[in-house]
Amino acid sequence: MGWIKVVGIGPGDINDMTLKACNSLKECDIVVGYTTYINLIKPLIKDKEIISSGMRREVDRCKKAVELALQGKNVCVVSSGDAGIYGMAGLMYEVVHKENIDLKIEVIPGVTALNAAAAILGAPVMQDFAVISLSDHLISWQVIEKKLELSSQADFVIVLYNPKSRERPENIIKAQQIVMKYKREDIPVGIVKNASREGQQLIITTLKEMANYEIDMRTIVIIGNESTFVEKGKMITPRGYIL
Amino acid sequence: MGWIKVVGIGPGDINDMTLKACNSLKECDIVVGYTTYINLIKPLIKDKEIISSGMRREVDRCKKAVELALQGKNVCVVSSGDAGIYGMAGLMYEVVHKENIDLKIEVIPGVTALNAAAAILGAPVMQDFAVISLSDHLISWQVIEKKLELSSQADFVIVLYNPKSRERPENIIKAQQIVMKYKREDIPVGIVKNASREGQQLIITTLKEMANYEIDMRTIVIIGNESTFVEKGKMITPRGYIL
Repeated sequence: MGWIKVVGIGPGDINDMTLKACNSLKECDIVVGYTTYINLIKPLIKDKEIISSGMRREVDRCKKAVELALQGKNVCVVSSGDAGIYGMAGLMYEVVHKENIDLKIEVIPGVTALNAAAAILGAPVMQDFAVISLSDHLISWQVIEKKLELSSQADFVIVLYNPKSRERPENIIKAQQIVMKYKREDIPVGIVKNASREGQQLIITTLKEMANYEIDMRTIVIIGNESTFVEKGKMITPRGYIL
Repeated sequence: MGWIKVVGIGPGDINDMTLKACNSLKECDIVVGYTTYINLIKPLIKDKEIISSGMRREVDRCKKAVELALQGKNVCVVSSGDAGIYGMAGLMYEVVHKENIDLKIEVIPGVTALNAAAAILGAPVMQDFAVISLSDHLISWQVIEKKLELSSQADFVIVLYNPKSRERPENIIKAQQIVMKYKREDIPVGIVKNASREGQQLIITTLKEMANYEIDMRTIVIIGNESTFVEKGKMITPRGYIL
């Protein structure tokens, strides 16, 4: 029987991958993944069998990986960013447990989009933070709304994943309005599109103005806390050291 | 004038470092860091000048890096995990801005402790999460308490950094009691000590029992949400896919 590794490939640039992730790809027989992510790591997996499929085929990909591992293949299931944060790690375990198969699964952690976006913006996440996906595909909007309300009230730095899709363009506006009930409207907001990928774009604006900029599913939005400031083009949430 | 890179070296194992972090260390003249972290990457920096110092010397280390860069040296300031999450990135910018020096600073993102701990536990952070440091060295306990209250109320997965120190052994108990006001006492809790380092230890327990285990500053505690479960020794927060 083969093994399955769920590999976080980082935000996009191969240089943001870990050595362990690179080595896992080298050691496997087959790479399974979402087409966009497969394309990001193409140079590393030229000599491998590749099974790629489109969005929302996550369950199928995990089942395919199980099937291949049972045939004796060593399989890497790739996930962008960190496989354990809105990635494929959980689903992979669920599929294996449901089928009651005794397969070896290992999760290889990676640099998640928030780490990459923060590094590009400066240092906006140096204090306690909340991470919220605005996608209501798998979770009800009511649950997301509650998290936005309470994390704003607690003045967390707030990191938004999946802030906008064609199907729900209004979620980001709704989120902004909730956060504005509790945070000053001039609090800095960083918007990073395609962090560490081709087409990287960076905007530093305010809570009030954030919705005026282009935001899509490949964008990470970081909303500061009460102490966040912008200086020389960098967004910084001070950790609290006295200089 | 030289450059400064603030490099996230990941949780500890050199294989969890990114290629960019490795290359930054290779390309620099001098590595500045906390002694413990310097020791983790020793094999990679054998031929480099090293300036290491103890805990709470963070400001001094940043000032030293500036001094060296002004002398024309290329300097890596290392930070464990991700430099942008409770790391050195923010302080480095603050020091440079305060001295009003026009130095090139780059933050190299890394795998933070929560990514590593989650990968070891299974997949406990697949839904929205809040990250809270229990260290009240730089932040008042009242502020931390408010974050614990509201994030528990919102049923975030909660990740605790710096859960316990010799100076404040009671903070973890206080945190547990706050979380228990809102979350079921049988909710799974993962405790990972020395994630991806020598002496790695892993415990999966419950909110009620968590304080009975050894927890220190090198431990990450992950408290599940309403849907988190334990199966075959893995802690999983399902993303919500229907199998």
